[in-house]
Amino acid sequence: MALAMDAAALNAFLAAEFPQVVPSHRVEEATEAGVQVRLTADPGQLRPGGTVSGPAMFGLADVAVYAALLSRIGPVALAVTTNASIDFMRKPAAGRDLIAEARLLKLGRSLAVADVLIRSEGEEAPVARASMTYAIPPKTA
Amino acid sequence: MALAMDAAALNAFLAAEFPQVVPSHRVEEATEAGVQVRLTADPGQLRPGGTVSGPAMFGLADVAVYAALLSRIGPVALAVTTNASIDFMRKPAAGRDLIAEARLLKLGRSLAVADVLIRSEGEEAPVARASMTYAIPPKTA
Amino acid sequence: MALAMDAAALNAFLAAEFPQVVPSHRVEEATEAGVQVRLTADPGQLRPGGTVSGPAMFGLADVAVYAALLSRIGPVALAVTTNASIDFMRKPAAGRDLIAEARLLKLGRSLAVADVLIRSEGEEAPVARASMTYAIPPKTA
Amino acid sequence: MALAMDAAALNAFLAAEFPQVVPSHRVEEATEAGVQVRLTADPGQLRPGGTVSGPAMFGLADVAVYAALLSRIGPVALAVTTNASIDFMRKPAAGRDLIAEARLLKLGRSLAVADVLIRSEGEEAPVARASMTYAIPPKTA
Repeated sequence: MALAMDAAALNAFLAAEFPQVVPSHRVEEATEAGVQVRLTADPGQLRPGGTVSGPAMFGLADVAVYAALLSRIGPVALAVTTNASIDFMRKPAAGRDLIAEARLLKLGRSLAVADVLIRSEGEEAPVARASMTYAIPPKTA
Repeated sequence: MALAMDAAALNAFLAAEFPQVVPSHRVEEATEAGVQVRLTADPGQLRPGGTVSGPAMFGLADVAVYAALLSRIGPVALAVTTNASIDFMRKPAAGRDLIAEARLLKLGRSLAVADVLIRSEGEEAPVARASMTYAIPPKTA
Repeated sequence: MALAMDAAALNAFLAAEFPQVVPSHRVEEATEAGVQVRLTADPGQLRPGGTVSGPAMFGLADVAVYAALLSRIGPVALAVTTNASIDFMRKPAAGRDLIAEARLLKLGRSLAVADVLIRSEGEEAPVARASMTYAIPPKTA
Repeated sequence: MALAMDAAALNAFLAAEFPQVVPSHRVEEATEAGVQVRLTADPGQLRPGGTVSGPAMFGLADVAVYAALLSRIGPVALAVTTNASIDFMRKPAAGRDLIAEARLLKLGRSLAVADVLIRSEGEEAPVARASMTYAIPPKTA
């Protein structure tokens, strides 16, 4: 199974189509096993104490799943999240980037499912886990 | 069952403790049946086409559940979201505020569960539904 | 919006297509607002103490969402659950039937989303809430 | 980190406390990385066509998470599932056992979180994924 897009192609696509998620998010790696995305939170994404907010972690998981999907099917701007479940398990370390690892568990014609683990950089214990479903628009001829 | 905080008290608490969620979020109503929270998205919360982003809808649901919880237990800054599931069902109407209605389904000593419906203002069909669990810190004497 | 199937039609369909879920499940009401399904647990669905098991509550929620869907689109045996999230909030009352109320929040061409509240008969406080997504197979000519 | 219970101890505990989940479920392995549980479905857990039902897969995920938790904290009959999310991704292979692999992502004082992958025996692609939260009762002196 070859990848349709590598990390550089994914970052270029995100910058063109979703400029607001760049530069805080960066795809660091895309392989057959999945993708790794880094979040360098901006001030609006922090909570008192300097930890990353829940919505920002949700956004990171979403970008990671989207990147994992695109790495396999190529640039499809119109894929949309239909469902997400997320567990917040530990407080992120203050002042540290978050690293999300997403792996695609199902790639169907119309639905894709992936799961994600998010860690503070340099920590083993995950701060959050998420699973998400994306709806893939039908190909038009 | 009396409310511990009304809409004005909730807005004052959010402004003091979570200044970054104000002014885009506003508690409009708090009753025994639940709370209603309005999101007036800022530019960073919009996606191409002018619709509200997924993370912003997640954040709105989170604020609404938090407000529903505080309306019953009073100002507890340290309650944290432990789990969330969300279904994105329709595209939000462009240029329209979102209105979230949250109702508390369980209020235990250490866990609270609520669900939320989010609509574009003036529309009947919901754009998203969410359910969330909050962990309530033990009272210290 | 007219209903495609009423409670009697739904029960007849379930008995024909899913005989194993009958007789423990019974559709009691189907209206435009949603459906109500009763679970009279059999011994294999009980846990020590006489309360209904988690898998049995999951099954009840699933039947209720399926019935809510069929009440609107008619008999489609091949619709399948793709996602479910469930919160178990209170212990069911021992020796009491469970009543599930499901309402359809989205009915699209290929996906339907519904949520469910489950109560012990005669109790106000819900024992569980669930939300589920069903994939609807494309119509064949 | 030593295990509090191995596979044999887990099976003995389940047989004593939850006789109705035995003999269809069997813990096959318990290591620091997680546990593996096999479901040999009985006729009541099958759907037309011979595939395992959704509630039975839910039950398998629940047993696997519970076993993963007990393998670390020892025999605690009163731990209860508070939240579950599950994605059904592929139809299970007919006439084949299901194998669940659960890993504990968080083990706190009062809450534990785990995720699970379920496969048909001998297949690589997962049929379902789940994540679950268990509430752990406080220790009584």
